[in-house]
Amino acid sequence: MPGLFSTHFVLAVCLIISLTTISTANAAVRRYKWEVKYEYKSQDCVKKLVLTINGRTPGPTIRAKRGDTVIVQLKNSLLTENVAIHWHGIRQIGTPWADGTEGVTQCPILSGDTFTYQFLVDRAGTYMYHAHYGMQREAGLYGSLRVALPDGESEPFSYDYDRSIILNDWYHKSAYEQATGLSSIPFQWVGEPQSLLIQGKGQFNCSLATPETGACNATNPECSRYVITFVPGKTYRLRIGSLTALSALSFEIEGHNMTVVEADGHYVDPFVVKNLFIYSGETYSVIVKADQDPSRNYWAVSKIVSRSGNTTNGLAIINYYPNHPKRSPPTRPPAGPEWNDTKSRQDQSLSIKSHPNFIHSPPQTSDRVIVLLNTQNEINGRRRWSVNNVSFNLPHTPYLIALKERLGHSFDQTPPPDGYNTTTYDIFKAQDNTNATSSNSIYRLKFNSVVDLILQNAQTMNKNKSDSETHPWHLHGHDFWVLGYGEGKFNKSTDPQKYNLVNPIMKNTVPVHRFGWTALRFRADNPGTWAFHCHIESHFYMGMGIVLEEGIEKVGKLPSSIMGCGDTKGYRRP
Amino acid sequence: MPGLFSTHFVLAVCLIISLTTISTANAAVRRYKWEVKYEYKSQDCVKKLVLTINGRTPGPTIRAKRGDTVIVQLKNSLLTENVAIHWHGIRQIGTPWADGTEGVTQCPILSGDTFTYQFLVDRAGTYMYHAHYGMQREAGLYGSLRVALPDGESEPFSYDYDRSIILNDWYHKSAYEQATGLSSIPFQWVGEPQSLLIQGKGQFNCSLATPETGACNATNPECSRYVITFVPGKTYRLRIGSLTALSALSFEIEGHNMTVVEADGHYVDPFVVKNLFIYSGETYSVIVKADQDPSRNYWAVSKIVSRSGNTTNGLAIINYYPNHPKRSPPTRPPAGPEWNDTKSRQDQSLSIKSHPNFIHSPPQTSDRVIVLLNTQNEINGRRRWSVNNVSFNLPHTPYLIALKERLGHSFDQTPPPDGYNTTTYDIFKAQDNTNATSSNSIYRLKFNSVVDLILQNAQTMNKNKSDSETHPWHLHGHDFWVLGYGEGKFNKSTDPQKYNLVNPIMKNTVPVHRFGWTALRFRADNPGTWAFHCHIESHFYMGMGIVLEEGIEKVGKLPSSIMGCGDTKGYRRP
Repeated sequence: MPGLFSTHFVLAVCLIISLTTISTANAAVRRYKWEVKYEYKSQDCVKKLVLTINGRTPGPTIRAKRGDTVIVQLKNSLLTENVAIHWHGIRQIGTPWADGTEGVTQCPILSGDTFTYQFLVDRAGTYMYHAHYGMQREAGLYGSLRVALPDGESEPFSYDYDRSIILNDWYHKSAYEQATGLSSIPFQWVGEPQSLLIQGKGQFNCSLATPETGACNATNPECSRYVITFVPGKTYRLRIGSLTALSALSFEIEGHNMTVVEADGHYVDPFVVKNLFIYSGETYSVIVKADQDPSRNYWAVSKIVSRSGNTTNGLAIINYYPNHPKRSPPTRPPAGPEWNDTKSRQDQSLSIKSHPNFIHSPPQTSDRVIVLLNTQNEINGRRRWSVNNVSFNLPHTPYLIALKERLGHSFDQTPPPDGYNTTTYDIFKAQDNTNATSSNSIYRLKFNSVVDLILQNAQTMNKNKSDSETHPWHLHGHDFWVLGYGEGKFNKSTDPQKYNLVNPIMKNTVPVHRFGWTALRFRADNPGTWAFHCHIESHFYMGMGIVLEEGIEKVGKLPSSIMGCGDTKGYRRP
Repeated sequence: MPGLFSTHFVLAVCLIISLTTISTANAAVRRYKWEVKYEYKSQDCVKKLVLTINGRTPGPTIRAKRGDTVIVQLKNSLLTENVAIHWHGIRQIGTPWADGTEGVTQCPILSGDTFTYQFLVDRAGTYMYHAHYGMQREAGLYGSLRVALPDGESEPFSYDYDRSIILNDWYHKSAYEQATGLSSIPFQWVGEPQSLLIQGKGQFNCSLATPETGACNATNPECSRYVITFVPGKTYRLRIGSLTALSALSFEIEGHNMTVVEADGHYVDPFVVKNLFIYSGETYSVIVKADQDPSRNYWAVSKIVSRSGNTTNGLAIINYYPNHPKRSPPTRPPAGPEWNDTKSRQDQSLSIKSHPNFIHSPPQTSDRVIVLLNTQNEINGRRRWSVNNVSFNLPHTPYLIALKERLGHSFDQTPPPDGYNTTTYDIFKAQDNTNATSSNSIYRLKFNSVVDLILQNAQTMNKNKSDSETHPWHLHGHDFWVLGYGEGKFNKSTDPQKYNLVNPIMKNTVPVHRFGWTALRFRADNPGTWAFHCHIESHFYMGMGIVLEEGIEKVGKLPSSIMGCGDTKGYRRP
């Protein structure tokens, strides 16, 4: 790791961090006992069956310090359904089997089973957890994971209080219903979400309730507005994460600027925003000072951007103490940015750079460049998303087990393509993509090699208008350097010359904007098998992802608890 | 087996049957490839996600001949949910692992897995199949299994055509929603069904649709009335089965008498009924002659009995060829019997006796008598059903595997009680039942012993009125002799003197009427572990069942495909 850093100063900082990480003198073990089951909730006033952890959605917040070991003993109390939980942003160095990605790193946790996740949190920052099986995340199975610095260390910014907020969008249809529609011929898309939730709370307009909606009760306390209390004069760190099923969001607080200081566990060269654009899978810390007129409350607003629709904005109340927390602000909530203001979103992406004191310098060159063209396709009459015309599907035996235990050809061994035909493929034109295929083949990387992943966006299958969606891609097991964003088709010769190799931010999730490209670099130094996929849950379900393998031979002995499906099914007496 | 028969005549008949059964000269292998998945259906005009087999609910009808081997290769294409299918009425002699009872005879079939059921159908008759995991049966996973006589043999009745009809009740709430309510504190019962289905078709009154109901479309062809075409002058065998979630039913055909000739695979001493009472888990064959005015169509009606409610009767059309099959009969559908006419239902139960030429004489005495008091209880604040104050729950390792593979104490080894305190327990009084417990303990029977099972009904927990429900109990792996029914508390000394030991019918499912008892006898001669439970799906879920073990040491090598859960989870290299 130290070899990655380019200046003596950064090297020194890094060594200190590394040593602190390795030190376990003050490390604690944080134990959690969770039970997953269905419960009725009315999070947006419409009663719906949701997946809960210990009766709650969002689930309990995990609070740990850097160097701690987190142990979550998870009881699956679902009647007939399995489960798996991913620790989003935790790299799982040395514990690839704890990544919680069904089909990639583990078999699902059977109905009735108890499974123990154990992993080290080796870097302070704002993380999340969520189901990574089927479309269970949308059913409410998610929460916050917050890692503080060890005692005596401090962040490069200061604040009085620390709050975790997860933003989400919300559908009245169950995850089953949505998935069934997506797999139907003809394709039935669930459409735009009915509500936006702020820390699990939203408000659907009950006067719009129909037989399709479910029972709506505007006075249910479960859908009272979420309240964040500000003590006048104090400074707040808001740790904001998005786990939307679909939506890109803007988040803002009426009358308050926010200073962005952290992104996906990395310190950002601070910049001030009126509204924060945030994509599913991203986390940010923003600093907000309670410096406005303390005689009233203020609106916090989440709003869908990048897609046009009629979903009502999500609202929470910033409650200036000692005003009543439920007192509505006297103003109309801010309208937020225009949904189609792509420029502002691109600009914010470009603004996110590493804090000067915490630069992890990227390798100046890479060993391999994989260009990933994101397209819609139709395969056997079913609408799919694809990467380089290959629509991904998960194998029945998780890759980690199949490869480590040499279980033979339990997945397609043909390597997927490292790119697409840039000469002939017009990314601005709706294509027939008749040559698309489905596959569970994976990218096998040379251990410790430096890999560039270039996300290339394109026109959807919509032939009627210029249409390219925003896709937030999330990498498991690593952070990557965000080297650049661009519009149009990525040029392999000229665009790399514009890479930011000086102070790129490291992240685990990043958007590729409409008709644009995003260039990422990472070092394949974490033995295991790792998913890289669009964090829109339905897009991954529809094939928009890949899996990377590196250093499988360096993976330690796999716990047998991750096995039991596919080729690892069946009991043999020892 | 021949030793069971009491007269030379019957012995001779039996020997012929046995020899024919053993003969496999003409036996065929019936292969089925099934895929289980969710699809949207509007079976009662309300759109709902249902479990389908090859896109259908009811699933494909299995048609076999006695002596055939049925092989069903079942692909579980559910996204996150497991499955198991029970072959209701098939005794699974020699193949206890193919009974399909999750938790008793097999681990659930994992999402994505393919499992093969293989079993012999060793007796002609009318059977069914359905999910036996969680509450998936209610979600639509069921169908007919019809076993004909081998060529050259004939039934003791004649008919021109043969039709299978499954009756069902139907809820708009998903099985998940229902189960969540049942496990809630306070208990939330789903209530009476919204519709009654005849062979998968019903009609909800769309004008009653609410946000709770779901979208209703009265013109959806999926909820057009089920039609049975009669050619005037011809005779029909209707094979009628019930797989209701809750309801006891009456079935009748306007203007036509029905002659009951078969029950659960056994020939009945024929008797004529205007309406057939049928309980969940039962099958009957009735003979109907198309001898009415052929210029019109007629109604077939299913109606809920034994419970009062406002569920609309189920209607199908008996279409006299060549009238248009959709032409409504010119009459009002028959109203059916009064819901609370218990006497008529008891009388029909008593009418069902073995056909004189096909009597299987029961052993005249039994080796063990187990009295099973059926009560409601509350355990840890949850509403439950119990047997002798023990509320049953399934273990995590199926009994068959745990016992055969000697996996140790994976379930409670204390035997459950063979009775209750008949001196102190007032079956007519609502009891607090504060001493009720939950357990997964089982009854272990001496192999080849004769066991009496006495079902004893009682007052529910309802303190406000006299209230005792009708429970249809189903025994796996066996048929039992139905020795008698009675009202009030079973008297161990006097009531057995009234047993019918001459010509009792053999069945696999039988009701215990309100405040009454039902006496059954069977021989524990089928090595395996077998459930005996109330066939109301929610009642079994709430603890109303027991499990019997017999001759476990005689069970053959278990297929490893049934393993993979509980103590049989985990992969060990061979």
